[in-house]
Amino acid sequence: MPATVLSDWLAQRLNRHDESPVYRQLHKLLQEAILSRALGAGTKLPSSRVLAMEIGIARNTVTQVYEQLTLEGYVTAGIGRGTFVADTASDEIDTGDAEVSSLIAGGALPVLSARGTRLLNGAGVFPRQGGAFMPGVPDVTRFPASVWNRIHSKHWRRLQPDLMTYAPAGGLPVLREVLADYLRAARSVRCAPEQIIITTGIHQSIDLATRLLTDPGDTIWTEDPCYWGVRSILQASGVQLKPIAVDDEGMALSATDLEAPPRLILVTPSHQYPLGMVMSLGRRRMLLEYARQHRCWVIEDDYDSEFRYESKPLACLQGMDPERVIYVGSFGKTLFPGLRVGYIVVPRALAASFAMASAELYREGQMVQQAILADFIKEGHLSSHIRRMRMVYKQRRELVLAAIRRRYGAKLPIEGGDAGLHLVLLLPDSVDDHQVAAAALAVDIVVRPLSTYFSRRENARSGLLIGYACVMDERIEAAFEQLADVIDGYLSCKREFTST
Amino acid sequence: MPATVLSDWLAQRLNRHDESPVYRQLHKLLQEAILSRALGAGTKLPSSRVLAMEIGIARNTVTQVYEQLTLEGYVTAGIGRGTFVADTASDEIDTGDAEVSSLIAGGALPVLSARGTRLLNGAGVFPRQGGAFMPGVPDVTRFPASVWNRIHSKHWRRLQPDLMTYAPAGGLPVLREVLADYLRAARSVRCAPEQIIITTGIHQSIDLATRLLTDPGDTIWTEDPCYWGVRSILQASGVQLKPIAVDDEGMALSATDLEAPPRLILVTPSHQYPLGMVMSLGRRRMLLEYARQHRCWVIEDDYDSEFRYESKPLACLQGMDPERVIYVGSFGKTLFPGLRVGYIVVPRALAASFAMASAELYREGQMVQQAILADFIKEGHLSSHIRRMRMVYKQRRELVLAAIRRRYGAKLPIEGGDAGLHLVLLLPDSVDDHQVAAAALAVDIVVRPLSTYFSRRENARSGLLIGYACVMDERIEAAFEQLADVIDGYLSCKREFTST
Repeated sequence: MPATVLSDWLAQRLNRHDESPVYRQLHKLLQEAILSRALGAGTKLPSSRVLAMEIGIARNTVTQVYEQLTLEGYVTAGIGRGTFVADTASDEIDTGDAEVSSLIAGGALPVLSARGTRLLNGAGVFPRQGGAFMPGVPDVTRFPASVWNRIHSKHWRRLQPDLMTYAPAGGLPVLREVLADYLRAARSVRCAPEQIIITTGIHQSIDLATRLLTDPGDTIWTEDPCYWGVRSILQASGVQLKPIAVDDEGMALSATDLEAPPRLILVTPSHQYPLGMVMSLGRRRMLLEYARQHRCWVIEDDYDSEFRYESKPLACLQGMDPERVIYVGSFGKTLFPGLRVGYIVVPRALAASFAMASAELYREGQMVQQAILADFIKEGHLSSHIRRMRMVYKQRRELVLAAIRRRYGAKLPIEGGDAGLHLVLLLPDSVDDHQVAAAALAVDIVVRPLSTYFSRRENARSGLLIGYACVMDERIEAAFEQLADVIDGYLSCKREFTST
Repeated sequence: MPATVLSDWLAQRLNRHDESPVYRQLHKLLQEAILSRALGAGTKLPSSRVLAMEIGIARNTVTQVYEQLTLEGYVTAGIGRGTFVADTASDEIDTGDAEVSSLIAGGALPVLSARGTRLLNGAGVFPRQGGAFMPGVPDVTRFPASVWNRIHSKHWRRLQPDLMTYAPAGGLPVLREVLADYLRAARSVRCAPEQIIITTGIHQSIDLATRLLTDPGDTIWTEDPCYWGVRSILQASGVQLKPIAVDDEGMALSATDLEAPPRLILVTPSHQYPLGMVMSLGRRRMLLEYARQHRCWVIEDDYDSEFRYESKPLACLQGMDPERVIYVGSFGKTLFPGLRVGYIVVPRALAASFAMASAELYREGQMVQQAILADFIKEGHLSSHIRRMRMVYKQRRELVLAAIRRRYGAKLPIEGGDAGLHLVLLLPDSVDDHQVAAAALAVDIVVRPLSTYFSRRENARSGLLIGYACVMDERIEAAFEQLADVIDGYLSCKREFTST
């Protein structure tokens, strides 16, 4: 196959409705083409700009795939030279690692395990971590760095050997105490400090709970849609996910769902992720009653409830039944994501086991940082930073809402606009939100397609997650206009939209 | 059962040869006694001091078990009042969580999953992290804190938003570059920066490799003895461990072993953990040849090879076959454990997959810390700190060796004395090293029983891990004398010993 027909060949085979992301599909197709010698050694591949344009995906995606293929030795690249298919045939005689390549090619050696392949195929992590309109990322430029640095220097001025070794099971006691007070006041969490286990964030909290409370094959209910990271961790632990659709009141269980109780139920009652609804009090009561009757544990992910702009939040679910609900949260949104401090609040009966297992599995440290954080909270900086940022985000949210209204009036519905760090702009379901997001990325606007957050195709809706927290006020309108121009290109071809 | 006969009842049931640690056994026995009403509500338990003495275990252990039972609501404690069995019967009527207690009691509700229970029963983590003679813990008091603080302030003076968000897949590029240079020079590791994935340490490195390269049920060869943390992580991932005995040349495979190739082989070739031998060149070649033939991956844990006092180390295994060996290491021993920075170096064919999976599974951050560490290494502080500490540890090792020789001559053999942060003092196998360690702990000397590091009873040897790195020079002799007094109490009753 000459490289000139490569674009057509790829375009025919890329399936945007496939569960596997375009990145993985393109990588696999090119690998196959090279291994099967359809693309012969020495063939020059089209430039990433040209290929991206011809097959209608983001240039970034092509660049990344080329980089991975280079790393893996399938192609060679040189600045200003272009990208060429490597001469894998001669390698097979010369070097040890060609043996691997040929075995992979022959299917004899699965490089990754089945669970590893599943993990990567379902991966939701994204190479960009900021810019308009990256969802879920707070504005870190307003972080009171000088305060943090002052407390840091205080702790390092006099070296404290006790803080430099491994952490005691559960984390630094003073942080657990400060946190118990904070969570009681801010979120109505009912717990003693011993029930709090310090983790590196939601990923580790869910991993710990899953390993301790479930066995491979156990069923876990998740909301559909939900956070991709949680889905990946659960799957990597070998449990069966049962995605439950959500409606305006949160997780909406059908009679059939109720027949087979799960081992764990994972919910985001304060602010459904990513759609934003609040679970109603009725549903909360029903859920807890069901969990008690059927002896399942409920995990409450309270990931960004500090930022609520229009109404007072309901208290957390944990406060309604502290012996049944496991509460997880982190400082990633309230302080900064790179801090990597989260917490899991567990029932008294589980506290000692969770503390010990976390020490055994993760062997944590970072106690200097925990001590700094404890001081930071005690001195009132966390609360005042949250208050300050709530005003900042409220303003940005209003700017985005105004920009949407100006451009679309009420034509495109908005979900989840009254809390958190992002909102969801719904698109007609006939519009492929992956395509819109890829086209937006090509003009350097990051939005994430809503449909990727759904586990079941029949529940999926088309839309865009628009994160406004990390976009400067003065950038918002222009960035949204750029995005809207992209959106319009997809809306204009849709009869359904113009007719409503 | 009145509390006065409790000690006898417990002493009869505690089994020091059981795989489960004494802590877990005692906890379980007391739970059973309370739930079965053998110990009635209101019964006063003996003080921790009295109970520890009467059943011959460390007081610390009893205190911890009492604390856990208090947390779990089985007993109530008040300062100066003593510890009393709680009135669980009335709870069953009154409160929601008593339902749980009664279900647990009735066996209806397993609080933890089977894998969670296994994890805790096999847990090796220890509440103490320092003191004479805690193995595996470096001397953190010599860490150049002022240098670290200076670099920290430099990075925080001007807030760098890019470093405060989530880490790019694989970690901060500049740290990966600096690390590739360091590992090439110091350990003959052959890799490009892209092949290095920054992790939080050996636990996360092994977890990542296991999840990507194995499926539940796959076999993994481990050395016997090996590090408890690795054993726990592998088991938590559902793989089958096949412990392979070691001899003077390292992992010693029998013909039977070779018949069933594993998916992964985990070795510590530079310094077998915890026995300290170096894997011979012959064994290295055989191992790699076998791995190539049978397409298994080899994981090389190079945990403390920087500290070698008598001889030059062999280069690492990875350098002999970079496309077959996965190399893991950390800064826990060279800088300080609480830093939580480690790395995994993977073959080129796996690099992109490992980077992406680590972002997906752990969603790492801590880039400011990674930037500080990169500067620290570039400015030469890592190398000079290691050189300095090598002299400190060499001196301490000589002090311990001298103390052992003075007291025992050649009567008790020593293993692994020429490298690392600990040595192993072998005891006659008729001596129960758990008992010795527990008795030592009662006089505030921490040593860990060698037999716990073995997976198979038939391979197990009796001995004590003596860590000298975190003990001040002037404390070593007196601390060893205290320990020797404890040891002698156990040696004197052993005919085998006095007759040799």
